[in-house]
Amino acid sequence: MRITALAGGIGGARFIRGLRHHLDQRGNDTGSADGPHEITVIGNTGDDITLFGLRVCPDLDSLLYTLGGGAHEEQGWGRAEESYRVQDELLAYGAQPDWFRLGDLDLATHIVRSQWLGQGHTLSAVTARLAQRWGLPDQGIRLLPMTDHPVETHVVLSGEEPRAVHFQEWWVRMRAAEPAERFVVAGMDRAAAAPGVLEAIRSADVVLLPPSNPVVSIGIILGVPGVRDSLRGTAAPVVGVSPLIGGAPVRGHADTCLATIGVEATTGAVAGLYADFLDGWLVDPADATTTVRGVRTAAHDGPLLMTSVAAAADIAGAALDLALSLGRS
Amino acid sequence: MRITALAGGIGGARFIRGLRHHLDQRGNDTGSADGPHEITVIGNTGDDITLFGLRVCPDLDSLLYTLGGGAHEEQGWGRAEESYRVQDELLAYGAQPDWFRLGDLDLATHIVRSQWLGQGHTLSAVTARLAQRWGLPDQGIRLLPMTDHPVETHVVLSGEEPRAVHFQEWWVRMRAAEPAERFVVAGMDRAAAAPGVLEAIRSADVVLLPPSNPVVSIGIILGVPGVRDSLRGTAAPVVGVSPLIGGAPVRGHADTCLATIGVEATTGAVAGLYADFLDGWLVDPADATTTVRGVRTAAHDGPLLMTSVAAAADIAGAALDLALSLGRS
Repeated sequence: MRITALAGGIGGARFIRGLRHHLDQRGNDTGSADGPHEITVIGNTGDDITLFGLRVCPDLDSLLYTLGGGAHEEQGWGRAEESYRVQDELLAYGAQPDWFRLGDLDLATHIVRSQWLGQGHTLSAVTARLAQRWGLPDQGIRLLPMTDHPVETHVVLSGEEPRAVHFQEWWVRMRAAEPAERFVVAGMDRAAAAPGVLEAIRSADVVLLPPSNPVVSIGIILGVPGVRDSLRGTAAPVVGVSPLIGGAPVRGHADTCLATIGVEATTGAVAGLYADFLDGWLVDPADATTTVRGVRTAAHDGPLLMTSVAAAADIAGAALDLALSLGRS
Repeated sequence: MRITALAGGIGGARFIRGLRHHLDQRGNDTGSADGPHEITVIGNTGDDITLFGLRVCPDLDSLLYTLGGGAHEEQGWGRAEESYRVQDELLAYGAQPDWFRLGDLDLATHIVRSQWLGQGHTLSAVTARLAQRWGLPDQGIRLLPMTDHPVETHVVLSGEEPRAVHFQEWWVRMRAAEPAERFVVAGMDRAAAAPGVLEAIRSADVVLLPPSNPVVSIGIILGVPGVRDSLRGTAAPVVGVSPLIGGAPVRGHADTCLATIGVEATTGAVAGLYADFLDGWLVDPADATTTVRGVRTAAHDGPLLMTSVAAAADIAGAALDLALSLGRS
């Protein structure tokens, strides 16, 4: 089975890890020769930022570290057993910024990525090399950046004199508390989907949308030329998992992001953002009454919280079952 | 008094630290208003290398760390209390090389230097910013790279099919044991002295050559267009300190480097390399019989070993006294 997923950072990463776990479990339980499952993950690169001259791809790294067993689980970002000697030195030299913490182990990823990019390799090629070290190919997981072009989400802040800041500055430094007027994806006008991205959507057996931020993660990927059309055109059922429970985001500031684009913070309104290509929508039991025109809504049999690998596997399994129960309309 | 020195790495760094110590001591002892002494150090950049996409300037860094109190004294290179988490990660990603150890604290210097260079600042400007953090201006020390152009010393190896390697690969990985045919300074044909370099030589009251490697440190600086002419033309006495004791280098592979350029490994032969501009030459008591035509040779009253700051201060003081005793011929 070929499964393609669009993913942001930690939510996407935990969902994919759960999916991998579920597929392994499924194979063992049924004893069936389902054949090896291939998972293609299309990662958001709109969060990417150049810090200290190094290219940082927070969402791709969350996917690599989480799937490779190197993530800091409690923190939700960065590496386990991390130290901060290098950045403390950088700050001693007067380098900026101090509001984005980069650990020593994490920095190595950015150094090697920047080195390889500087040698002329594409972000796809670089990501594939990084994924090798984290054992993703051995798990049947292929991680593709949504695009090889450098794109960056910027946030236009409200105020008398509108000014824009990088998404990370708004998200991390301002904790998304500074009122935002809109999101602008710098570079997207020149961007094209990375090799394999559109093909992975078109030729998939199932397409899944993990509970990633619908505006600044999934929404950004949907803006890559050809992605939305491929989702509309694929023969595979497309099933999403709600990132909201009773109107509140499980993690992050999805409600603030939705307010910025003028969309209600309800699971139904989020599904509405995907209505042109969505076939199934998995919601929390608290949202069981949600209905979305043209979309089969199903309530999960437990809370939609990925509090453990097992819980994430249950959720991913439910999304997959929902997809398999649907033909493409 | 304006003192200008040409310096390689650790030998140059320890000499300058000794000189600073000597000048402070001299001021205290005489109680005289000698006025503040200004030391301009012209650092070799031929050892510079790009590793993991980061610009590394080993000699400038040895000067910064040693003068700023951050050097690993026993090791003679790199930072004290160093760790190697980042490079271990880089190697886990399959990045190269593994034969040049870069510590975490040290890497911060290379990251910030590369960032600032990437923003279009010159190596001079970047070095000045780095020097600020290490307190060099407060010590009356100005550190100038010999040139702002990227130059790199390469070593042409002997063998049926001659091939060249970067100086660091020959020095560090091959431990200078691979027979070398000659040294080539890539980029020197397009290089110009950095701002202030020629002026610092021409307008100095005293010019000193620390006991740095005469071929791959001092010799490279002498190859920068205008440097040798400025040394010939300056009104200041030029005094050097022998890097050899009884024909053996105090540290490093000066004898091997001398053999490569076809020069005898004697203190007299080294002075001969500088004969067109050298006025005084400080040697070890073991070399007291050395004579060099046109150069006043003096034997130090102790071994020419910078085994402590005090010993280095004695040597620097003796070199300075020798210079002050000489008018320019």
